[in-house]
Amino acid sequence: MTYTRDDLLALDREDTLAHVRDRFILPDGEIYLDGNSLGPLPRSTAEKLHDVVHRQWGHDQIRAWNKYRWIHLPRELGDRIGRLIGARPGEVVVGDSTSVNLFKAIAAGLRLRPDRRVIVSEINDFPSDLYIAQGLVDLLGDQYQLRLAESGGLDDMLDDTVAVVSLTHVNYRTGRMHDLAAVTSQVHRQGAIMLWDLSHSAGSLSIRLDDAGVDLACGCGYKFLNGGPGAPAFVYAAERWHDQLSQPLTGWLGHARPFDFVPEYQPADGVGRMICGTPPILSMTALDAGLSAFDGVEMADVREKSIRQGQLFLELVDQECGGHGFSLRSPEDPHQRGSQVCLGHAEGYRIIQALIARGVIGDFRAPDVLRFGITPLYLRYTDIWDAVAHLRAVMETRAWDDDQFIRKELVT
Amino acid sequence: MTYTRDDLLALDREDTLAHVRDRFILPDGEIYLDGNSLGPLPRSTAEKLHDVVHRQWGHDQIRAWNKYRWIHLPRELGDRIGRLIGARPGEVVVGDSTSVNLFKAIAAGLRLRPDRRVIVSEINDFPSDLYIAQGLVDLLGDQYQLRLAESGGLDDMLDDTVAVVSLTHVNYRTGRMHDLAAVTSQVHRQGAIMLWDLSHSAGSLSIRLDDAGVDLACGCGYKFLNGGPGAPAFVYAAERWHDQLSQPLTGWLGHARPFDFVPEYQPADGVGRMICGTPPILSMTALDAGLSAFDGVEMADVREKSIRQGQLFLELVDQECGGHGFSLRSPEDPHQRGSQVCLGHAEGYRIIQALIARGVIGDFRAPDVLRFGITPLYLRYTDIWDAVAHLRAVMETRAWDDDQFIRKELVT
Repeated sequence: MTYTRDDLLALDREDTLAHVRDRFILPDGEIYLDGNSLGPLPRSTAEKLHDVVHRQWGHDQIRAWNKYRWIHLPRELGDRIGRLIGARPGEVVVGDSTSVNLFKAIAAGLRLRPDRRVIVSEINDFPSDLYIAQGLVDLLGDQYQLRLAESGGLDDMLDDTVAVVSLTHVNYRTGRMHDLAAVTSQVHRQGAIMLWDLSHSAGSLSIRLDDAGVDLACGCGYKFLNGGPGAPAFVYAAERWHDQLSQPLTGWLGHARPFDFVPEYQPADGVGRMICGTPPILSMTALDAGLSAFDGVEMADVREKSIRQGQLFLELVDQECGGHGFSLRSPEDPHQRGSQVCLGHAEGYRIIQALIARGVIGDFRAPDVLRFGITPLYLRYTDIWDAVAHLRAVMETRAWDDDQFIRKELVT
Repeated sequence: MTYTRDDLLALDREDTLAHVRDRFILPDGEIYLDGNSLGPLPRSTAEKLHDVVHRQWGHDQIRAWNKYRWIHLPRELGDRIGRLIGARPGEVVVGDSTSVNLFKAIAAGLRLRPDRRVIVSEINDFPSDLYIAQGLVDLLGDQYQLRLAESGGLDDMLDDTVAVVSLTHVNYRTGRMHDLAAVTSQVHRQGAIMLWDLSHSAGSLSIRLDDAGVDLACGCGYKFLNGGPGAPAFVYAAERWHDQLSQPLTGWLGHARPFDFVPEYQPADGVGRMICGTPPILSMTALDAGLSAFDGVEMADVREKSIRQGQLFLELVDQECGGHGFSLRSPEDPHQRGSQVCLGHAEGYRIIQALIARGVIGDFRAPDVLRFGITPLYLRYTDIWDAVAHLRAVMETRAWDDDQFIRKELVT
């Protein structure tokens, strides 16, 4: 069929998530397709931060730690993220960066398989994940090894020497999504520990970590969770491992009784031992606000809208921009794709710049990928239409072919 | 001599740092002697955060990373802390917690002495420092060892097997201060790497890391640097080590070219390779504001006022509270003491609670220590008088002997 803008307007009218858009502050005249890099500002963030800064920190100073339960935020926010990723309360904590949590989680996984020395990952995973795994291997010495599979080549890498398989659920560059449950089962059949990086999926997909039997996971707070730039990350450990759980970043707030100030470390109960240092309360407050945007929202509904919007985006690119040289860089099957669609084009960098200049905010990944994040909490169906209409206009007028769109450093 | 309040009023009148107090929001009627746990709210914090939240993140979204140089904050804030601790530009970066930075720094120190396997610390150092060192030793395996000296027992621990000596400059419980330059020289004579935790000294003492030949250091952003609850920490590496510097938390923002997204880690120049994950911009903004409170302030002047206020506090306790059973738990010599004074008393916990109820905010450390932080940026000499007058009133009226002051969990 051929779509018109009115068709998408009709979809907006019947969208059961449409009211959630009001929970965000979105600049007029812009279509934000980069929530997979940095989620936009939730409306409640500024208010919550003001309260924490002025009333809690400013007025109550040191006493705020107890009075406002700051010390419990890593677990409380963890439980709220847990709801979004299919974890039960007590399996997730928040704090540190994704990279630091990945370090803890890989190390924890190795300790659950002490007779094995191999970590497996994929060469196309987010580079920081590979750097962290390599950093740990280098620290542990020659007996340890990081094996990197090509995409789709996981099978060949698995054997009974593999302790931990660490994979990103949704590929940052292409949006390709692993079948989380199937890969977890495959890894378990080889006796290895499964660790998922959910940075590009938490808050956008319907994830059931417990049901899938996942062992460990971590992920980012500033993408689909809308926690603000550099928001604290999260880490998950399945309850069945809690008694054996151990990780090397043994900071005082992962201690069973931190305020006893004893010289010997004794791990806190459960996933609490994945906490390290003092939690960054201001950044956690913003993450708290970001998570509030999910109040009353079911992830199954988010996922359904995401698939529909992603499919419409691709169908409209076909319909409106055929003949302009775009190729599909995401999987065609929406069930193999996360909440982003990626196009390839030789002039991808400059096309993205020209789109941004028109208020359509996507991003670019070398060498030639245009990334568009699909974020159903605030994206309207008509935004999809309008974004593609801008893309068509950019191509038809060759607006990208302008000196102002020279290549600059880009930041995720 | 016997002091009167007028004597301290006269000192306030001639205090060249008196104007700096206006840079903080301090609740009326309170005397805040806990800036060594959590610095109070700088006046500029809320304004800077509002700008970063609304204009930068809210309006510019992902583009803010480049437009507002967020990506450079770890180095820019690092250089500003560097000025306060005697480091040249390019030797300090900001990010992660103190515990995580300590992990990096100890690991980096071990790599600078690959033929040695012993870490030395002090059993009375802040417990998280010991937990982190032990966590690293456990990860590295049996050849590695953590040796803990009793206070003053460092000599006996040093030999040619020691790779790294990790010490807190100012003891959190007693305020006892190491002679940073002398201990560094002593450690170097044994061929070991010197690592200082400056959490209780940065922003309150006159520290000259470069002049003292220190190798590595780290410290806290939320105490004397006023960066807000759980503010990002900092890490220092002397320039002479930069070529050899290496640490295991190899996150993408410590990469030489993070936005090339290549699978192989290549360390950034200099201390930049101590950066790990994405910087927490909101927390860093608050630290930025906290550091602005030091604009135009010389640390030598801060230290001079701190010594004077600490001495006055102790002399006034003698004068006003003699016979109430207080003992001195800090060193008597102010040159062996950081910017806090500590008293011992069997009823210490309840006395601190009674003081807090009267608006004098100190804190308690088990088993019987009353801690009073001396923070010259905003503390007046008359505050010292008034705090001791309250202490006298609490003791004379036995105000502490009240059921409301039962023991509860305390948080640093």
